[in-house]
Amino acid sequence: MTTAGKVIKCKAAVAWALNKPLVIEEIEVAPPQANEVRIKIVTTGVCHTDLYHLFEGVNKDDFPIVLGHEGAGIVESVGPGVTEFQPGDKVIPLPFPQCGKCRFCKSPKTNQCADAWNTDSMKSSEDSRFTCKGKKVLQFFGTSTFSQYTVMNQMAVAKIDPAAPLDKVFLLGCGICTGYGAAVNTAKVEPGSTCAVFGLGAVGLAAVMGCKAAGAKRIIAVDIKPEKFVKAKVFGATDFVNPKDHNKPISEVLTDMTNGGVDYSLECIGNVEVMRSALESCVKGWGVAVIVGFTNKDDFAARPFQLIAGRTWKGSLLGGYKMKTGVPEMVKAYLNGKIKLDEFITHNMTLAQINDAIQLLEHGKCIRTALSVSPP
Amino acid sequence: MTTAGKVIKCKAAVAWALNKPLVIEEIEVAPPQANEVRIKIVTTGVCHTDLYHLFEGVNKDDFPIVLGHEGAGIVESVGPGVTEFQPGDKVIPLPFPQCGKCRFCKSPKTNQCADAWNTDSMKSSEDSRFTCKGKKVLQFFGTSTFSQYTVMNQMAVAKIDPAAPLDKVFLLGCGICTGYGAAVNTAKVEPGSTCAVFGLGAVGLAAVMGCKAAGAKRIIAVDIKPEKFVKAKVFGATDFVNPKDHNKPISEVLTDMTNGGVDYSLECIGNVEVMRSALESCVKGWGVAVIVGFTNKDDFAARPFQLIAGRTWKGSLLGGYKMKTGVPEMVKAYLNGKIKLDEFITHNMTLAQINDAIQLLEHGKCIRTALSVSPP
Repeated sequence: MTTAGKVIKCKAAVAWALNKPLVIEEIEVAPPQANEVRIKIVTTGVCHTDLYHLFEGVNKDDFPIVLGHEGAGIVESVGPGVTEFQPGDKVIPLPFPQCGKCRFCKSPKTNQCADAWNTDSMKSSEDSRFTCKGKKVLQFFGTSTFSQYTVMNQMAVAKIDPAAPLDKVFLLGCGICTGYGAAVNTAKVEPGSTCAVFGLGAVGLAAVMGCKAAGAKRIIAVDIKPEKFVKAKVFGATDFVNPKDHNKPISEVLTDMTNGGVDYSLECIGNVEVMRSALESCVKGWGVAVIVGFTNKDDFAARPFQLIAGRTWKGSLLGGYKMKTGVPEMVKAYLNGKIKLDEFITHNMTLAQINDAIQLLEHGKCIRTALSVSPP
Repeated sequence: MTTAGKVIKCKAAVAWALNKPLVIEEIEVAPPQANEVRIKIVTTGVCHTDLYHLFEGVNKDDFPIVLGHEGAGIVESVGPGVTEFQPGDKVIPLPFPQCGKCRFCKSPKTNQCADAWNTDSMKSSEDSRFTCKGKKVLQFFGTSTFSQYTVMNQMAVAKIDPAAPLDKVFLLGCGICTGYGAAVNTAKVEPGSTCAVFGLGAVGLAAVMGCKAAGAKRIIAVDIKPEKFVKAKVFGATDFVNPKDHNKPISEVLTDMTNGGVDYSLECIGNVEVMRSALESCVKGWGVAVIVGFTNKDDFAARPFQLIAGRTWKGSLLGGYKMKTGVPEMVKAYLNGKIKLDEFITHNMTLAQINDAIQLLEHGKCIRTALSVSPP
């Protein structure tokens, strides 16, 4: 019996309020409207940006909401005007659209999209297709992968290779593209260079993998949890520094290790003090520091001479990938053995265990947890 | 009668202490040592960095000192091992060396030099060749163009075309290269782009000239002194904004004027709040903000999302020019009518009037004053 055109009742983890555990609820998911695609989510991860919304509360009014923006699934049905997708297609929902028509999409310089400006990508979509207990429930970044079904605009959905294992490639929906692309697209790491990666969660490890793919000679992995160094080595790190082992600022430690500073540094935590350290760890003349970890509560800062001396400060959103075209290519790279994904998954759970998965991430006890949402 | 090999007694403007007027004194200038060149200064300008040292006092111990680092002159004699220069050569002393041998000099990415690291370019040289009233007097940036004679290492001296008028090309020793190069070398302004220049002193006007030379379609000149707009138009500015004419932040004014922000912004004041505004005035996706004005007392700051959304923050020192090779090329560009210099000079004075020239600059009443130091 087809569900196309009908409201679907399914399970979702609803965040009813700031700083409260998620609750597994039955929600109603409306059929897709024009240019929309309804997707059965098979696997989701939990990303720090989900926690950022749940715990930091940029806007307390952005509740109730279904979080989750790093997932993979299968098209269930499509709305009027959708020709690119068919039921059964394997897809990755994207937390950032690529309309393909605006001046940003047409420029090779950026992965921004005018459509994201119009709807303000950092706010939850008010035009949600979700209801629960008679209340409208918001969609996070327009995605909401903590639900068995979601509805998205087709400009924010990537069709991927049918051979792709959804319980692995879901990672390409956010974290892995973010870190890997920050190294290869944003920093544009050059062969033979020296890099430093601050923070060895999934994004940081992906940045290490990106630095290695770009041909970096030396990749210094920095974390206050030395147990993460084992995995960093798997992804290509050559040196390991725990700031707690030193009595001087980490930027001085790295400067001393590298005869003046690293060529590239990537901040993969979302901490404004570490952003400063990452800049100050770069060599004068040409050092490039990239802000990869997301936060927007506080200012980052430095002394002007840090830049006047020739350093560059950049930021990276989703690794600079134009996601609708970039994610399918990254899926192919995985299928061809060019990038690792399996090694990021330290835990496997089901959607019912979402609060446990959040706890693991919050306390840095996992790299990524793969949460089974629906049977494939 | 030759002066080579002898101590020269001559006039210099000595800064005896922080925040005090300069005093014209007779000083002794020792002969050049190995790899050094003694230069008769013909013309000098006054630059904000001289005022920064005199009034802001990064280090109160850096007195007495002879300031001035933007000048032009003629080689009087050379020390042992100098083969590149001969007495009579027209030269521009450089506030930053180019040894030609270090990893920075050998890289096309930067105008930094390892030698500048070793001697700490931001501190006054303790190895001065000046004495006055029996006291050692420091050299500012190793240059000290507020003296009729100075002694410099040959790696910080540029030999220029004998046809060059020293009373004009002295401007290329600092300010004009700084602003012009910030646009063409550091920002790498592209044809057809939209630029904003904050601050319309000599550096800002040179940045306007650089934006125009690079083919910018629209150049927005920003200053709180609208009388400066006339000159900005001469250098190529197309739009003129006085922040005092608006009730909203200047970044919003520029964003509204440009459908989302400028492609390039150049801060030519040395004010950390304006640095922030200049970043926030850039378009998301690819906007590049360059810190050109010098200050290092306070932090500059912004919200991380400003960079994460695709903006780049850079800084420029001497416009990114490798000065020993770049300044002679800029002199040629002037002689060939490719860049303007005469239009920067609003006042002509003598070294004896140095305190008047400082006052003019401090109060923004001049663009540049050409101070005659010695007869040519």
